[in-house]
Amino acid sequence: MINATHDPGLRSWVESAHAEATDFPIQNLPLGVFRLRHRHRDRWRVGVAIGSQVLDCAAADSLGVLPGVWDGLFGSSLNALMAEPPERWSALRAAVSSTLRSDTAIGRQAAAHAAEILVPQEDVQLRVPADVGDYTDFYASLAHATNVGSMFRPDQPLLPNYKWIPIAYHGRASSIVPSGTGLRRPAGQAGGEPAVPPVVGATRRLDYEAELGLWIGGGNALGTPIPVGAAGRVLFGACLLNDWSARDIQAWEYQPLGPFLGKNFASTVSPWVVTWEALAPFRAPACVRDAGDPAPLPYLTDDADQQGGALDIRIDVFLQSATMRDQGIPPFRLSSGRTADLYWTPAQMVAHHTMGGCNLRPGDLLGTGTVSGPSRESRGCLLELTWRGTEPLRLPSGEERRFLEDGDEVVMRARCEREGYRSIGFGDCTGTILPAVP
Amino acid sequence: MINATHDPGLRSWVESAHAEATDFPIQNLPLGVFRLRHRHRDRWRVGVAIGSQVLDCAAADSLGVLPGVWDGLFGSSLNALMAEPPERWSALRAAVSSTLRSDTAIGRQAAAHAAEILVPQEDVQLRVPADVGDYTDFYASLAHATNVGSMFRPDQPLLPNYKWIPIAYHGRASSIVPSGTGLRRPAGQAGGEPAVPPVVGATRRLDYEAELGLWIGGGNALGTPIPVGAAGRVLFGACLLNDWSARDIQAWEYQPLGPFLGKNFASTVSPWVVTWEALAPFRAPACVRDAGDPAPLPYLTDDADQQGGALDIRIDVFLQSATMRDQGIPPFRLSSGRTADLYWTPAQMVAHHTMGGCNLRPGDLLGTGTVSGPSRESRGCLLELTWRGTEPLRLPSGEERRFLEDGDEVVMRARCEREGYRSIGFGDCTGTILPAVP
Repeated sequence: MINATHDPGLRSWVESAHAEATDFPIQNLPLGVFRLRHRHRDRWRVGVAIGSQVLDCAAADSLGVLPGVWDGLFGSSLNALMAEPPERWSALRAAVSSTLRSDTAIGRQAAAHAAEILVPQEDVQLRVPADVGDYTDFYASLAHATNVGSMFRPDQPLLPNYKWIPIAYHGRASSIVPSGTGLRRPAGQAGGEPAVPPVVGATRRLDYEAELGLWIGGGNALGTPIPVGAAGRVLFGACLLNDWSARDIQAWEYQPLGPFLGKNFASTVSPWVVTWEALAPFRAPACVRDAGDPAPLPYLTDDADQQGGALDIRIDVFLQSATMRDQGIPPFRLSSGRTADLYWTPAQMVAHHTMGGCNLRPGDLLGTGTVSGPSRESRGCLLELTWRGTEPLRLPSGEERRFLEDGDEVVMRARCEREGYRSIGFGDCTGTILPAVP
Repeated sequence: MINATHDPGLRSWVESAHAEATDFPIQNLPLGVFRLRHRHRDRWRVGVAIGSQVLDCAAADSLGVLPGVWDGLFGSSLNALMAEPPERWSALRAAVSSTLRSDTAIGRQAAAHAAEILVPQEDVQLRVPADVGDYTDFYASLAHATNVGSMFRPDQPLLPNYKWIPIAYHGRASSIVPSGTGLRRPAGQAGGEPAVPPVVGATRRLDYEAELGLWIGGGNALGTPIPVGAAGRVLFGACLLNDWSARDIQAWEYQPLGPFLGKNFASTVSPWVVTWEALAPFRAPACVRDAGDPAPLPYLTDDADQQGGALDIRIDVFLQSATMRDQGIPPFRLSSGRTADLYWTPAQMVAHHTMGGCNLRPGDLLGTGTVSGPSRESRGCLLELTWRGTEPLRLPSGEERRFLEDGDEVVMRARCEREGYRSIGFGDCTGTILPAVP
């Protein structure tokens, strides 16, 4: 629901929150788990990004400048908060908003304690914000599924189930890492044929996938589905997700049970959780079906939804090679996609995931799958952008790219913009490719 | 390694440990997490199955009759113990063995405290013994892969990658339940075709899959593979695993990313962890390849392994329908398979899983996939036994079965037998089908 915390006229006493380019104005208030980078054994605790700063919620609470009663502000994850009902998530957002406003009594008190409750973002380390029980990755972009399908199955690019089922697979939770973690180029088998032994070694087709991640709060008991209309109550927030993929390994292994080593070596998340409530102004109608496409089945249809089941978030992907870094060339934008183009909405993903009784738990992560749109510049991975390496990209340094090279840094950024609202962002989701283990 | 704890001549002061049919002689000593069924809010704690009893390790420790220094005997999981080095697992086994022996000083002391440290198994509740970070399911039975493949892809039953890669997919950790948990018949989409809408509703092709589960201890850092020769250090123990499957849902959804709703509604484990050390006498050579089959690739080959990389465990599956229960007809044996028939060994599964750097953590669970052998009676699921429902089974009650019906109870049991050793078992892995949510 849109409420006073979304008011574009809100002012904060944190000056940097008013910078035009900031991802973190007072209308955003994303949650994360941080500690001071240079303090030995500093405790992990809950923070909120505001401008260039982090509000230390535990410090604000102990100084009496965070209204309400809050437990669990110390700890290495948001799971405890995610386990509370959505009304509590909303109450925390309202409390933090009042603490950071310049026109409230509590905000003026908080401002007097600025040195004790604010930490510059550059001084903090952020972790994966929740202990992920299960990570599920969807395949919700029709353009992505069609593009990839046409490379692997030219006779049948889009499988018959695609427009009926929000296709997904279970991913690997252990290898989810926070933005900034280096990525070791993985080894695997690739290129085998019945009579030709596969090659064992480091992947030669390393790729990224630009996705939106959805953090689950609350959940459901095993055996009890979540109706599509109730999905909003378990959507805690969102992040950027880079589902790194080794295309040669994936192509050889994925039949018949799906991706395994091609995907499980690492997935990177942006560490700030932009809450579902913060995203309320940026809801959008579900993607328009083509004539002849089936209507979503009843269990995937929410007639009561007034806001639109989809989200309109722009996701940009940038690449900076080692050579570009050396030459001082900034990251180069490879693509710009929109989550509003996804064929399936977050609520449909939740309803489908649980329809057979599968239980979601606080801290579970759902990925949307690669966010690609119909245009070439909206393709969310190199596999599509270079058409399986057949159409290499040229970087500003003059280098060519078919797939990722050692030293390449991939940077993802996301932004929500709508007339009448303050635009908000997600912070960076980055990773640099490290050479394979020799 | 085989050591004094495996000596078939060992005697325990627990009389029921000497029953010929018991799964739990003193040579087994499986670990579990239990509490008293009828004591309000009893604490979860670590126990060891011995004959018809459970040794309460925490009670034995506090009474001074468990040699050594042990932490973590209270708690709702074995994860802390699994995180310790294998030498500590071995030390605990040796300690428990001495506590339960009738010919040791500590054993005689323990026997004097029998009423305080033993609990009848019928009086305890057992839980999933570890908090499962990630659950991976392999597909290691060549016979199963060939049988299933021939139904779904008659032109190409076995895919070209099968004999090179220990194929696996990521399963769902949240819906792993302990033996005895009722299974709600899941809903899903089934039977769709491009022009024909799929049917939405309860599965009509509900099946079980008889598997061995492998519990991981220790683990590896992200980016650091575990060589095949070191896999034994992360294999903590084994259990029975029923990977329930909805075949109609699975068939419609599984392309291109693998099983999802067809598998994630529940997986049942037997609650006792038979340790890797207890299984040492039952190691077996890896399955014999056919002439013309490729040799395992170097990263999957352990030339130093003296014991044989495989395990020889017999897994029997029984079914008792509601009618059979009413008529007093005992569970009827459907099949009997052997893990020695698996194409890939546990060590090969670990080496492949981590070759790209994917990290395993204490409490992770690997399933072998359905354990089927070349003979008809060794087929580990109804899909194979009834050949996709085309060859129904007849039960002793006169009923037919193509797939599972409401009220059916599936019981899995496993047993290790070898000349010169005391045979050991796993305890039951059971589940009864409950009607779908209306």
